[in-house]
Amino acid sequence: MTQSSIWSPISGGITAPTGFQASGIIAGLKPSGKPDLSLLVAPEGAVCAGTFTTSMVRAACVDLCADRLIDSDGRVRVVVTNSGQANACTGDRGLVDSLGITQAVADCLGLSQEQVLICSTGVIGVPISIKNLLPAVAPLVAALKANGGDEAANAILTTDLVTKQIALEAQIGERCVRIGGMAKGSGMIHPDMATMLGYMTCDASVPFDLWQAMVRRAVDRSFNAITVDGDTSTNDTFLAFAAGDPLPPDQLEVLEEGVTLVAQALARSIARDGEGATCLIEVQVEGANSERDALRISRTVCGSSLVKTAVHGRDPNWGRIVAAAGRAGVAFSPDALALWIGPHQLMAAGEPLPFDRAAASTYISERACGRYLLDDTVEIRLSIGDGAGHGTAWGCDLSDQYVRINADYTT
Amino acid sequence: MTQSSIWSPISGGITAPTGFQASGIIAGLKPSGKPDLSLLVAPEGAVCAGTFTTSMVRAACVDLCADRLIDSDGRVRVVVTNSGQANACTGDRGLVDSLGITQAVADCLGLSQEQVLICSTGVIGVPISIKNLLPAVAPLVAALKANGGDEAANAILTTDLVTKQIALEAQIGERCVRIGGMAKGSGMIHPDMATMLGYMTCDASVPFDLWQAMVRRAVDRSFNAITVDGDTSTNDTFLAFAAGDPLPPDQLEVLEEGVTLVAQALARSIARDGEGATCLIEVQVEGANSERDALRISRTVCGSSLVKTAVHGRDPNWGRIVAAAGRAGVAFSPDALALWIGPHQLMAAGEPLPFDRAAASTYISERACGRYLLDDTVEIRLSIGDGAGHGTAWGCDLSDQYVRINADYTT
Repeated sequence: MTQSSIWSPISGGITAPTGFQASGIIAGLKPSGKPDLSLLVAPEGAVCAGTFTTSMVRAACVDLCADRLIDSDGRVRVVVTNSGQANACTGDRGLVDSLGITQAVADCLGLSQEQVLICSTGVIGVPISIKNLLPAVAPLVAALKANGGDEAANAILTTDLVTKQIALEAQIGERCVRIGGMAKGSGMIHPDMATMLGYMTCDASVPFDLWQAMVRRAVDRSFNAITVDGDTSTNDTFLAFAAGDPLPPDQLEVLEEGVTLVAQALARSIARDGEGATCLIEVQVEGANSERDALRISRTVCGSSLVKTAVHGRDPNWGRIVAAAGRAGVAFSPDALALWIGPHQLMAAGEPLPFDRAAASTYISERACGRYLLDDTVEIRLSIGDGAGHGTAWGCDLSDQYVRINADYTT
Repeated sequence: MTQSSIWSPISGGITAPTGFQASGIIAGLKPSGKPDLSLLVAPEGAVCAGTFTTSMVRAACVDLCADRLIDSDGRVRVVVTNSGQANACTGDRGLVDSLGITQAVADCLGLSQEQVLICSTGVIGVPISIKNLLPAVAPLVAALKANGGDEAANAILTTDLVTKQIALEAQIGERCVRIGGMAKGSGMIHPDMATMLGYMTCDASVPFDLWQAMVRRAVDRSFNAITVDGDTSTNDTFLAFAAGDPLPPDQLEVLEEGVTLVAQALARSIARDGEGATCLIEVQVEGANSERDALRISRTVCGSSLVKTAVHGRDPNWGRIVAAAGRAGVAFSPDALALWIGPHQLMAAGEPLPFDRAAASTYISERACGRYLLDDTVEIRLSIGDGAGHGTAWGCDLSDQYVRINADYTT
């Protein structure tokens, strides 16, 4: 947030922007009895941009969303989300159920089915309990409110430990513009074009093609730059609604800054909530030939099991960091490498420097101690040359707890 | 080994083929005091093929090996290996030390420096202790013997729990041909063009270009098809010597079968010895459009943290397996997916089948119980269509122990 002097954080999450309504209720889809059905409704005239998982094994709802956005040029108003079952690998029934749910929601709101999207998250291969869900649609719609962001953000979670919400506000020209967001995700996180599930709202309208392009760039710099365990999900979806008075073209750049900041805040909070994680790892790469190259290296370092376990062990292990950078598939001269962990410089001109190992280890351990959403970011900075390309990726440490969570439970 | 009726296992490892000599001694390079210097000498007339890490951060010895093989068209006779220090990220000194060691070995053997290669493995960023190594060259050469395979295989290890050796013999036409191999590797294993360190000897000679091509194909089907933690090393090197009477062209195919079997046996033993592993995971993919596509999917499944932790937890979690297959970057129709874990079929035509979960879990737990080099392979078979492409990759489960090994120690 420090990069911007224009955008300020506000409360309200996904419903902070004017005109949006949301709700979240218990429909009886999760064995735990926690909230599991949420609804987000955009005002009339909204456009919606979406990015989706590139996995070949996709849930039916992902195809449904992508098709409806394309068919309508983004003229979509509603997204309903169920948590508990991902509705992936459920055969023909998967699409039938997704269609039935969006029809029921559309009927209840007096909209056409084509204006309603659906996202699902949870266990793969298990059908959604339709007999519980359909009777819950009317109460879900009845619960809609202009400050329902918290309820909605809570009802989309699965193994997440915390809700992920953010909202920003800026004075742009004569008016106040707000952007809100929420997301979920903790395991199976290595998004490729989108996150597990992420949503954004904005109360300024932008032409659909410009909005879609802006959202895609923001996603590349946020959700596509995080990794928890390298596993891309079957249901990754990010949906961004823009609705309200249009912004003039010369103010789109500042809007994009806000869109990117919201997306990055949500993405960081997913990485921080990685299964078993005790800290967020942020890897900045500079001096690359392009942003793409920089992002590729930074994400490779973030995803390295050896780097992740070293951070978990409070070990300033520069050898593992440069080894990971070296295998990222990006050409650079090792002689130009410089490396910092926090304030400690560990390498210059490709060679290790003498450094205070105890102090560097203390820097890591002060951050990797499991405090939640405090100052728990381990910063790694890598300079690989004198190019103008720079990029940042986020991940988390790899703990015994990650193994236990994923060895002991079927997800 | 069951695929072949021609090649039979024999003892002797790297020195099983006629004419090769090896040794391994304690030079005082490892703090543990274990053997740390080994030598392999091929008979006159040998050709050597090599494949090397594609990492941008390579140790000086890797470049030295690659350059000398190219400059001499493979006319190289000797490889010396030190364990304890990888001699990567050691600046200009790295190359000076590598040159000095090969010169000393060449002088002692009465060869030219260009006929000697060097491999190094161990901690990154620490120079080799030259003052300990150089005086050890004469005893190392004096220890050479025609049955020195065990000593050599032992002296190249670092965190490995067991030595990795294999030798095969076949009657080809009128003569007996032998192929031997040894390797090391346990962590930072995700080779790209080579393994951590692997060596092969063969007592039939093959023209250099044919030998190099044969070795590269075998490496693609073995070392390039394993993963322990996704981290490609700075020092990955595979060297294969062929020396002896030439084989006629029509017998090269059967030789290649043996070369591939030796490479696969070594690669499997590296994956099985993965840090913290309790079993080997073998993923067979069939029905792909090409061998390349099949290998890409099988290696992606092997490398999935969620699949690895599921196997560690004896969980027949087909959802994680198909999710990993879906993100491999290979196009296929999810409707065609079929999946087996051991003898248990879990999916057909893209949908889950009813199966005996307890029996499938027992199948995994009987194998993933940490018995070493017994029947500890968890077999996963995935059919993705009706193409002719098939391929197999190997990995291991991900345990709490892996995290502890890599969080608690600087490597």
